[in-house]
Amino acid sequence: MNLPESVSIVEAGPRDGLQSLERTYPVETKVEMVELLAAAGFPTVEVTGFVRPDVIPQLADAEEVFARIKRTEGTVYRALVPNRRGAERAVAAGADEVLGLITASDTYNLKNANMSVADNLGQIAGVAEVAREAGKPVVVAIGVAMFCPYEGEIPEPRVLEMIERMRESGVDDYYIATSTGLDGPTKVARLSSMILDRWPETRLGLHMHNTNGMALANALAGMQSGVSFLEGSICGIGGGIRMPYGMAHYGNIATEDLVHLCQELGVECGVELGSAIDAARRVKDLLELETTFSSALQGGTKAAVLEQARSAGR
Amino acid sequence: MNLPESVSIVEAGPRDGLQSLERTYPVETKVEMVELLAAAGFPTVEVTGFVRPDVIPQLADAEEVFARIKRTEGTVYRALVPNRRGAERAVAAGADEVLGLITASDTYNLKNANMSVADNLGQIAGVAEVAREAGKPVVVAIGVAMFCPYEGEIPEPRVLEMIERMRESGVDDYYIATSTGLDGPTKVARLSSMILDRWPETRLGLHMHNTNGMALANALAGMQSGVSFLEGSICGIGGGIRMPYGMAHYGNIATEDLVHLCQELGVECGVELGSAIDAARRVKDLLELETTFSSALQGGTKAAVLEQARSAGR
Repeated sequence: MNLPESVSIVEAGPRDGLQSLERTYPVETKVEMVELLAAAGFPTVEVTGFVRPDVIPQLADAEEVFARIKRTEGTVYRALVPNRRGAERAVAAGADEVLGLITASDTYNLKNANMSVADNLGQIAGVAEVAREAGKPVVVAIGVAMFCPYEGEIPEPRVLEMIERMRESGVDDYYIATSTGLDGPTKVARLSSMILDRWPETRLGLHMHNTNGMALANALAGMQSGVSFLEGSICGIGGGIRMPYGMAHYGNIATEDLVHLCQELGVECGVELGSAIDAARRVKDLLELETTFSSALQGGTKAAVLEQARSAGR
Repeated sequence: MNLPESVSIVEAGPRDGLQSLERTYPVETKVEMVELLAAAGFPTVEVTGFVRPDVIPQLADAEEVFARIKRTEGTVYRALVPNRRGAERAVAAGADEVLGLITASDTYNLKNANMSVADNLGQIAGVAEVAREAGKPVVVAIGVAMFCPYEGEIPEPRVLEMIERMRESGVDDYYIATSTGLDGPTKVARLSSMILDRWPETRLGLHMHNTNGMALANALAGMQSGVSFLEGSICGIGGGIRMPYGMAHYGNIATEDLVHLCQELGVECGVELGSAIDAARRVKDLLELETTFSSALQGGTKAAVLEQARSAGR
C-alpha cells in the first residue's frame, strides 16, 4: 500500500467533544483533560472555542481554560474561532493556532452559523488577518465538505473554489470534514487528491465522523491520497451535527482508534498507542462517561490480548 | 484508488451468527432468515453447519433447515463442515458448496477444534474428497490467519504453506479471516497479495470481525489487493471467538455495512443497499435482537437522511 511515513494526529475532544455533550463540566475538569491529552503526546490539542456563550454555553469559560492550563512543551494549543472577534479573543488568551470554520453548503451554513457561505468567507478573511497580525498560524476546517444532509453530494469544484478564495485571504492549510459521517473512501480520496494536486504545498487534514462505520477506511484512503493530519476526539465524544431530524449525536471517530490504525499501518503518528488508550481511559473516568464510541477501549488491542493470555497461563 | 469492478458479498449470519448467540431459535425462524437473505440478493448464504450437536447445539437442526428452505434461483446455499462426516451430511442435505475450516495457529486450533493444524489439514483433505466425488465446490476458511490471541502475529509463510498443502488436496479457493478483529489493513493487504501473487487464479475471500473498528478499512485494503469475496453477518451478529479470557462476542462485520462500503466505492457487489438494509431490519425483528453492530442500521444512509430532509421540508 502507498502510505506516508508519518501523519500528525490532532485531538479535538476538549472543544469538539465537550461542546456536544449535554453536561457542562467545570473549568478544572477541562483543564485536567487538556493537560492529560498534551501529556499523552498528542501534538495538537484543540483546547476550546471562542464563540458566543449564549450559542455554545459549554465553551463559555474559554479564556479561563487557556489561562489555567499548564503547558507541555512542543504541544500546539489550538482554538476554534468563528469570526474576527473570536480570533482576537483567542490570540489574547494565548492560543498557538487558530482554527476557522466554514461549511461547503449554503443550506447547512445558514442553519448552523446563520450566514451564507459567502458571508462566512468574509469572516474567515477577518480571522486570517487577526492571526497574521499576531503571528499565529491559521487553519480552516471545511465542514460538510462532501455530503450535505440537505443538499446531497457536494461537487468538488465548489470546495476548490472556496479554497481559492481563502488562499487569497492568506489561509494555506485546511481540514475537510466528513461531518455527517456518511462519506466513503472514494469521495475522500478524490477530494483530497484534487486539493493536493492543485496546491501540493498545502497541509491537508481529515476530520472524521463515524456514522457509517467507514471512518477508519476514510482515514486509510486519506493517507493514501496524501493527507497529513487526522483529527479525532478522545473516546469518540461529540460530533453532534445538525440533521434534518434535529441534532444527532453521531460519534466523532475516537482519536485512540486513529492512533491504533496508524500503528497497524506502520505510519508514525507521534503518539504511542498505549499512551492514547491510557488517556482515553482517564478521560472516560474524568468525564464520567457511561459509554464511548472507542473500539480501542471496548475491543482492546493485540498487546492487551496477549498479556491476558500470558497471565492466564494461556 | 485501485479497486476491482466487482466483488461478491457472502452472508454468513444463519451459520456464523446464530451459532454464537446464546438463544437457540426454532427451525422455522432459521428457514425464514435464510429465505429472506436469499431474496434480498446475497449471492451466497451460509445456511448452517454440519457439526456435532453436542458441540454446537444451535446448529443441531442442520438437515431440517436445508430440507425446508424454499430456494431462490441463483443463490448458492453453503454449509460449514468441520470434517469428512460433516461433508457427507452436507452433500446428502443438498448444500451447493461446502466450507472447510482450519486456523493458522496450532494453539488456537487445539483449543477450538481439539486437533493440531496438521490433523486439521487431514480433515480438509477428506472434506475435499467428499465434495469432489459429489461434484460440489469446496472453499476453506483459514481462521486466525493473521493474529492469534495466544501466539501473536502469524507469519505469512505459514499460511502459504498451509494453502500449498490444501491445494494438493484439490482446494482452490480460500478465505482468510481476521478472527480476533484486531488485524489491520497492512497485514490484510500483505497476506492477500502474497497469496494472489503465488496463485493468481485463486478466488480469495476476506472474513472480517470488527473488534478494532478497522473491518471496513480491511475490506478496502483487501479489495485493493485483489480479494474477490467479502464475508459478513447480517446485523453483525455472532463472531464469538475463543479468547484468553473466555468467549468474546466480538461482532462480525455487518454484511449491510460491506454493501454500504461497496456502494460508496462504486464497486458492484450484486446486492442493492436498500435490500440489504431492509433484510437487516427484518432479521433484527425476526431474531428479536435488542442491539446490533450495524452502522447502516444505526446511523443510516445518505438516501435516508435526504429523505428525512425532504419530508421535514428541509
